Amino acid sequence: MNKPEVTIYKIGGGIIDDAAELIKFLVLFAQTAGFKILVHGGGKGASAMMRELGLTPQLINGRRVTDATVLDIVTMFYAGKTNKQVVAELQRLGVNALGLSGADGNIIQGVKRPVKDIDYGFVGDITTASINKKLVQQLLASGLTPVLCPIIHDGNGQLLNTNADTIASAVAVALTELYTVTLHYCFEKNGVLRDINDDESVIPEINSAAYAELKAQGIIADGMLPKLENAFAALSQGVQAVIIGHALNIQTTLRTKLCLN
Amino acid sequence: MNKPEVTIYKIGGGIIDDAAELIKFLVLFAQTAGFKILVHGGGKGASAMMRELGLTPQLINGRRVTDATVLDIVTMFYAGKTNKQVVAELQRLGVNALGLSGADGNIIQGVKRPVKDIDYGFVGDITTASINKKLVQQLLASGLTPVLCPIIHDGNGQLLNTNADTIASAVAVALTELYTVTLHYCFEKNGVLRDINDDESVIPEINSAAYAELKAQGIIADGMLPKLENAFAALSQGVQAVIIGHALNIQTTLRTKLCLN
Repeated sequence: MNKPEVTIYKIGGGIIDDAAELIKFLVLFAQTAGFKILVHGGGKGASAMMRELGLTPQLINGRRVTDATVLDIVTMFYAGKTNKQVVAELQRLGVNALGLSGADGNIIQGVKRPVKDIDYGFVGDITTASINKKLVQQLLASGLTPVLCPIIHDGNGQLLNTNADTIASAVAVALTELYTVTLHYCFEKNGVLRDINDDESVIPEINSAAYAELKAQGIIADGMLPKLENAFAALSQGVQAVIIGHALNIQTTLRTKLCLN
Repeated sequence: MNKPEVTIYKIGGGIIDDAAELIKFLVLFAQTAGFKILVHGGGKGASAMMRELGLTPQLINGRRVTDATVLDIVTMFYAGKTNKQVVAELQRLGVNALGLSGADGNIIQGVKRPVKDIDYGFVGDITTASINKKLVQQLLASGLTPVLCPIIHDGNGQLLNTNADTIASAVAVALTELYTVTLHYCFEKNGVLRDINDDESVIPEINSAAYAELKAQGIIADGMLPKLENAFAALSQGVQAVIIGHALNIQTTLRTKLCLN
């Protein structure tokens, strides 16, 4: 029996910080057919509010160090303001969106990151097993569109700040048991570029063999490497396709499609 | 056929502002049997943050005047911080809580209050018809416990600030079609008092006839009058009982029970 299809769209800070772009994206998202899930990241609002309150945002390797005060602020921003504005806008557009943190319905339960060299504070680590896929399935079957923010919980009453890319890929892999899954990373570029300086040089499709070759040639390097490593890890765990492209091109073929074969 | 029973608990700012009391209440709430819904209000956190950001909270007749900035802040506090902390704590206590604003799943859709003498800004008015009772029923039937915050939406992408008491009573009345409903208002007193200066003088039960008499005698007056008017309005629309008492007494008989007859 064929599994039903679901697409998981992940949007990041770049589009969340631009209200006009965000609405344009949500209009396109609303028009896409079939089961879908939206995962959103943070944006700069939380850092701006910290500065207004006299706090200094601290990032190590791009990850936010989250003490109790910072956790309150990111919870307010991600689970409160951003999540509810996106949900209200999707409702306007006829999408029956339902916003969730990981605590809601225990949909994502993780663990506080163990302290090794760096204490990231209230930051959560998750695996595929962290995802309550039965609840996701039940919400989708009811005609609801889950909108996930990057705040999860540990099951012991503690909220935790988590990376939205990680949530998107964990949800994607977890759902492969029940659905044929496409994972769609939306960002500010048109896709994986053959020439980093030419935004039109998008490589339309990359399979495992082509990926190995592009790496060997040094065409895929730097910031794109971890993104694609994560994408191929998701593919090797059963995700059918990972798409990387601009948030406003989700309905076009201007994007890079990653597949195993 | 007997309808299933549901109890709607409303907690206000007094208990939300006291972390230790809030946890004590949630432990008691977790122990109650049967279908239940929690509606929470705001608390002083939002006003404190406004002051820290150099804004002056403005209240008219106890209602917050909500401009766009204030709406952002109350959305962050009520739908973000408070709602998610309560949900995470209930998950710890074994309650499969799911936090919702009115926008989520379109569970409460209202209208922006029309400007007459006073412009309250982004404040929402609701009626019984605003409540998506089918979604409430579906969540309860799935074993989920809805936790509602006082932020709703208008269906046109606008979030609105609303009174938690009003939400609790609208949800209660809306659910009478599907459930036998008890509405439980938790506050800082032990119930309706015969003597305002004696916290032990709780009147255990008041029906419509007794209510008329207590009003005539001047025993129920001032701040208690609108509360009881609202309670009897809910009863006259099919709610079976309204209970008024202290948040930490929800499992005891020290409270006032209001019924029609």
